[in-house]
Amino acid sequence: MATPANPQYFVGVDFGGTKIYAGVFSESLHCVGTSKISTKANRGPEGVIERLARCIKDAVDECDLDFKQVKGIGIGAPGAVDAEKGKVIFAPNLAWKDIPLKKELERLLDRPVFVENDCNLSMLGVYEMELDSKPRHAVGIFLGTGIGGGIVFNGEFYTGANHTAGEIGHMVLQVDGPRCGCGNNGCFEALASRTAIFKKIEDAVKQDQVTILTEMLGKDLEDMRSGDLRRAIRRGDKFIKKIVEDAARYTGVAVANLINILNPEVVVLGGGIMEALEEQMMPIIQETALDYALEGTAQDVVIRASKLADDTGIVGGAVLARKLSK
Amino acid sequence: MATPANPQYFVGVDFGGTKIYAGVFSESLHCVGTSKISTKANRGPEGVIERLARCIKDAVDECDLDFKQVKGIGIGAPGAVDAEKGKVIFAPNLAWKDIPLKKELERLLDRPVFVENDCNLSMLGVYEMELDSKPRHAVGIFLGTGIGGGIVFNGEFYTGANHTAGEIGHMVLQVDGPRCGCGNNGCFEALASRTAIFKKIEDAVKQDQVTILTEMLGKDLEDMRSGDLRRAIRRGDKFIKKIVEDAARYTGVAVANLINILNPEVVVLGGGIMEALEEQMMPIIQETALDYALEGTAQDVVIRASKLADDTGIVGGAVLARKLSK
Repeated sequence: MATPANPQYFVGVDFGGTKIYAGVFSESLHCVGTSKISTKANRGPEGVIERLARCIKDAVDECDLDFKQVKGIGIGAPGAVDAEKGKVIFAPNLAWKDIPLKKELERLLDRPVFVENDCNLSMLGVYEMELDSKPRHAVGIFLGTGIGGGIVFNGEFYTGANHTAGEIGHMVLQVDGPRCGCGNNGCFEALASRTAIFKKIEDAVKQDQVTILTEMLGKDLEDMRSGDLRRAIRRGDKFIKKIVEDAARYTGVAVANLINILNPEVVVLGGGIMEALEEQMMPIIQETALDYALEGTAQDVVIRASKLADDTGIVGGAVLARKLSK
Repeated sequence: MATPANPQYFVGVDFGGTKIYAGVFSESLHCVGTSKISTKANRGPEGVIERLARCIKDAVDECDLDFKQVKGIGIGAPGAVDAEKGKVIFAPNLAWKDIPLKKELERLLDRPVFVENDCNLSMLGVYEMELDSKPRHAVGIFLGTGIGGGIVFNGEFYTGANHTAGEIGHMVLQVDGPRCGCGNNGCFEALASRTAIFKKIEDAVKQDQVTILTEMLGKDLEDMRSGDLRRAIRRGDKFIKKIVEDAARYTGVAVANLINILNPEVVVLGGGIMEALEEQMMPIIQETALDYALEGTAQDVVIRASKLADDTGIVGGAVLARKLSK
């Protein structure tokens, strides 16, 4: 049992195709330290799981804690997850299939590990920490490298028949739109993810489009980040402003589609893109969504940005670990 | 109590903006007779409710039954419905707002009346009568004058925060697509409903497009019905074939969007369009949906046409009445 002299902690892990991000949280879910490393998916499940363990240990060490003070670890994985068995059923970005993540990590760390889909976990973090009204029906949209969603119906997580519900990034919004990584055209993700926005900018720059970004980052736009777009817009770059506003409009249409289909009480937007560009995008997202949603369906719906920004995943992991650790 | 000499019956009513269609069903839900009249929404709630009562009485009379043998009546209304109170909260096609349909009809008919949203009721009919596996998660898509949906999660109807979930006809599939009745562009309904298909044909004929339909119906395409399209295609009309196939492709994309978002076990398609054009549309719908849906999400999903065709509403009404009548 935790005593003031020996407090206990929870670790939340945001595990993506590109990076692993771990956060250590007190019992009151205050974040006391984090650690981040690259995923290196090419090393295969065993290599990646070792990196997950290392990132978790690093985060705990960063806080000068004894690893025995970690009561539980919650991890969001990018794919279909069987939460009960702690298995990643499949994760296309990692090329994983049927990996017993819980079992392997518990073997390495000797602590209870709980696994969920990354977007569900983000939504859990948002739901527990931000949505004080505890809405019965809510939808989370997470805009980053890709776009994913988390769905709450009747106060419970909805994961569908194969644990894969919420793939809102592959909702087609424009049948004849740009190519998506999934092979289709006009998916939400191909119109408004960081990948899509960056590609549009890079393609235009190759066609000699003038933008402050090339002054800031060089002609190759090396190491471009979402925050660079915010800075360019603040410095008056109309080209970047237009591209970000277009992405916001597509996001607004996606929000409207989800409102029309699911009639939720709350729609929350999070992820790296929202962290960097909330101010530029949210007013347009809200306006477009209310314009496109049916009047009666949109009545009283709240459309908001998550205050947790890009930390939804680690917060959700900690919430899950606190919930399930005995 | 019902005796062999005095059997009891249920009436299901499909109540739309254009027509009222009532069916009388035995206790084993065998249809013994129907009646159909126009809605005449312009007469206002009182006038329409009188027509509903008349259509129900006509259907019962058609079967040579005593009205006292009717144990209950289930009605699907085109809009947001508070099923508990039996009220139509709003129905744009009827210009109704807050109409106590249950109370008024019970006053006129002296029999128990149960009210639901029309697409939910259609889905109830499909779920009870056709989906023998009783899937936990299922989606119904009803293609007619407009397009609506019914959603089942965890074996229960999902109606959302304002009783308006399932407005899948206003899911945008093509941001820059044709104008929809709701004021937006590129809604599923503006691409694949009967209204959308007929408008495309009419517009083309005005531009001197050659089609067998003008031979069949005259230059004004008077009284065109979905069945005429089937007949034209069978007679080799490539123009009509293309238009119907395009609508099927859009429907397939809509099905894929719903699979990606909701990961159901079953997607069922019904309504007048499916009744008339199932053979022409279903293979394309299935192929497109499986092409657009993510592989893991679409795994094991069943996409099928309802055998109830355009009778989903009256069957659903009878199912509801049998369920709730004491």
